[in-house]
Amino acid sequence: MRPPTVSIALLLLIPLLSILPVSVPVSAARRSPRFLGDFAFSLPDPSRHRKAAYQYETRYFRQRLDHFSFAELPSFQQRYLVGPSDHWARPAGPIFFYCGNEGDIEWFASNTGFVWEIAPLFSALVVFAEHRYYGESMPYGSRDRAYENAESLSYLTTEQALADFAVLLTDLKRNLSAEDSPVVLFGGSYGGMLAAWMRLKYPHIAIGALASSAPILQFEDIVPPETFYDMVSSDFRRESLSCFKAIKESWDALEDQGQGHDNLVNLSRKFRLCRELNNTAELSNWLSSAYSYLAMVDYPYPSDFLMPLPANPIKEVCRKIDSYPDGTDLLDRIFAGVSIYYNYTGTVDCFDLEDDPHGMSGWGWQACTEMVMPMSSSQENSMFPTYNFSYAAYQDECVHNYGVRPRPRWVTTEFGGHDIKTALKEFGSNIIFSNGLLDPWSGGSVLQNISESIIALVTELGAHHIDLRPSTNEDPDWLIEQRKSEISLIRGWIYDYYQEKVASFSM
Amino acid sequence: MRPPTVSIALLLLIPLLSILPVSVPVSAARRSPRFLGDFAFSLPDPSRHRKAAYQYETRYFRQRLDHFSFAELPSFQQRYLVGPSDHWARPAGPIFFYCGNEGDIEWFASNTGFVWEIAPLFSALVVFAEHRYYGESMPYGSRDRAYENAESLSYLTTEQALADFAVLLTDLKRNLSAEDSPVVLFGGSYGGMLAAWMRLKYPHIAIGALASSAPILQFEDIVPPETFYDMVSSDFRRESLSCFKAIKESWDALEDQGQGHDNLVNLSRKFRLCRELNNTAELSNWLSSAYSYLAMVDYPYPSDFLMPLPANPIKEVCRKIDSYPDGTDLLDRIFAGVSIYYNYTGTVDCFDLEDDPHGMSGWGWQACTEMVMPMSSSQENSMFPTYNFSYAAYQDECVHNYGVRPRPRWVTTEFGGHDIKTALKEFGSNIIFSNGLLDPWSGGSVLQNISESIIALVTELGAHHIDLRPSTNEDPDWLIEQRKSEISLIRGWIYDYYQEKVASFSM
Repeated sequence: MRPPTVSIALLLLIPLLSILPVSVPVSAARRSPRFLGDFAFSLPDPSRHRKAAYQYETRYFRQRLDHFSFAELPSFQQRYLVGPSDHWARPAGPIFFYCGNEGDIEWFASNTGFVWEIAPLFSALVVFAEHRYYGESMPYGSRDRAYENAESLSYLTTEQALADFAVLLTDLKRNLSAEDSPVVLFGGSYGGMLAAWMRLKYPHIAIGALASSAPILQFEDIVPPETFYDMVSSDFRRESLSCFKAIKESWDALEDQGQGHDNLVNLSRKFRLCRELNNTAELSNWLSSAYSYLAMVDYPYPSDFLMPLPANPIKEVCRKIDSYPDGTDLLDRIFAGVSIYYNYTGTVDCFDLEDDPHGMSGWGWQACTEMVMPMSSSQENSMFPTYNFSYAAYQDECVHNYGVRPRPRWVTTEFGGHDIKTALKEFGSNIIFSNGLLDPWSGGSVLQNISESIIALVTELGAHHIDLRPSTNEDPDWLIEQRKSEISLIRGWIYDYYQEKVASFSM
Repeated sequence: MRPPTVSIALLLLIPLLSILPVSVPVSAARRSPRFLGDFAFSLPDPSRHRKAAYQYETRYFRQRLDHFSFAELPSFQQRYLVGPSDHWARPAGPIFFYCGNEGDIEWFASNTGFVWEIAPLFSALVVFAEHRYYGESMPYGSRDRAYENAESLSYLTTEQALADFAVLLTDLKRNLSAEDSPVVLFGGSYGGMLAAWMRLKYPHIAIGALASSAPILQFEDIVPPETFYDMVSSDFRRESLSCFKAIKESWDALEDQGQGHDNLVNLSRKFRLCRELNNTAELSNWLSSAYSYLAMVDYPYPSDFLMPLPANPIKEVCRKIDSYPDGTDLLDRIFAGVSIYYNYTGTVDCFDLEDDPHGMSGWGWQACTEMVMPMSSSQENSMFPTYNFSYAAYQDECVHNYGVRPRPRWVTTEFGGHDIKTALKEFGSNIIFSNGLLDPWSGGSVLQNISESIIALVTELGAHHIDLRPSTNEDPDWLIEQRKSEISLIRGWIYDYYQEKVASFSM
């Protein structure tokens, strides 16, 4: 068994440092916030995570590789999980369908307790469907072959994944003789984007969607590119201005103390790395990632989603950083702080920075094709090194790493985003965009009601899709209230659907 | 120059006669109503048709062959026509966008006068976009190569065509600095289906759609398969019961008189065919097609859409059939009737039945892949020979002719259709489904309002997308009223859009 260290895949920009403008600090060029997909693959020991307490059956469904052409391509098996049907009011009871995102579906199933917990209230059947090219849902028979090259990866797209869900649901309902069952979609993060987009594209298949922490506006020029890092920074400043300042100053200290081989050796020792650093960028990237993920999982109770963490982990990190007497070396304080994230259990012997920038990761591919989310780091509000997003550099790296050119405008062409209020005010219905403002992804999400039934539920103290997580005894009141609102809205959708259905039978 | 004869491409079922159940008359097995696509290609002399009186510029736009994957495929040039911009209120004036269907876009442009005529009222820019794989918009550089085989044809799908429109419009608006222009979609027949589906799938790109004679419900089991032929038959019965009966009886007469080679020679002579019949099915198919197309273009004024025809052509056909004294040979009467359709100008020397059932036609491919519209002919209400749709036979023929298996459930999975009222009552907006009840395609269309802004405009005496045709001095009052309603609804969509837009600027 490998030691419980963590490696973070860093996919973008790394091989391109040499062509970046000189004014961009090396470390800045390496930050590229991602969803959780890389974690899903690189979790060093999945067995460390509590195995899902939820009961389900694992099934497989044969899918076309390209739904939108008739090219002769091999089909593949999509995995999906089906909860117990004993409380399901068949044949017209609701189906609660989780839109699997960039990882193993069992991981999402065990971290999306909300769906399991509320299903019995609705006499609903629970289905978790895995996203193609993740987990066991591999085209071409194996992950190695699916991820072999740009050709084999070329059907890893969001539209294909949505079509998988549409075909699966249509077939499932037919086989269950449940054609009249209302389907409600759920998803968090990228899965929330899928849920919202699926409701918009397939309204005849699903009557509504709970899209939690779904940054569907984090594209092109819809939100300022500084949004994400500014929000991470704001989460730290909110806990402690001195902590924020310490981190902001640490990058220069890190550059200073990392000049030359001997200093890099010292730095590696200071941060208890398993191997020696090749450059300071490796380290600053490792730190930046921790801060970003901390902002995402800044939950008010102890959790073990990405890592085992205490309640309010940013507060803990800052408390640690702030706890040292004047004169303590800044990087020692930084190390102590980040250890809250990487080593809360205190069992890590050394930290493994290793990642394979040329390795094919699913989210890396998606970021290099459709999911082009420009990210900058501002001088004023960010605690990270200043960085201005360069699409040219981004593209070059994608060509280098994946042999593919991104289509940065495709997502907004296919799914919209610009001026979303005008576009959807009189169109669409039954979507909840839930967001917590601590979550840095909330800045790219829908934070205002679009219409009477396209609703934004915003909590000031929520982090990344906390509402979807299993309930705990420590849930704060605002979270309990948020979930009540969600249940009430979903109940309304189903009620309206049944009423309309009965009316159509009676006509 | 070829003589003005007409050949009708018959694509389906022909090679399969031997495996059809014995009880199905040979002639019945050959009928397969189609859209106008085959005509668009086989029009013997396009110059016969009045060249568009409308002014436009022809442009080309480079498109991806597969929008939904990143497979490396050659791009192609999509043709589109742009009307004069002198009356366009740029940069926020509306764009009226015709969703090109299965044929040369110039043909649709010249037959869709409504759009050209009303554009100045709205200070709108007119754009007609050609559908991929039709007209000049050929992948792989030429029609021959695009239609070479199932592999080359595999990207001829509706979803790809809609994505072409979405990408073209997005780019066009950006290049015109007209991002805030409201786009209104127009389309007739399959083009109307595209317009409606585009409004549903790309609400952020187009604010509304006029879908004229768009049979989006002619799939699977949504409407009875007898609908189309029953409606054609009803159009004839409405004009004359004796005419209806004569046609209904003619198939047996045709079988009787077509037994053996000598009789086939006589039949060929009786119907003035350019070559001898190989079997009676060739002839019954030629007749059936005429009746179906007559029902589609049963306009109340002389027209020249598919063929030069008098006003109320079915009335004329029946008048001819009914005009002969008792004892006249039934097939002589039938020939006289059908000559109204095939030879109204009286200039045809002989009729050319020739078609190439193995030739690759665009609509044939679409019917063999996505556009699977089951068609039967009932014993009771149809004047055509009884025929029960057999999906197995249909599929076999598609495999034989195109080397492709249809996906008969895909259209309803992708676009919906079942229980459309429940699905869309609280979803979507700003679609007009206009239909004339003489049009046999109206039976597969939306004939009831779905919601406050998804509206069905139904005229009792209208035929196939008559509302989109150029206005004439002979337009009946109901047609003038119908168009007024359409103008009024479209004006409302644009008004609401501007109001919402101004409100969003003011916030």
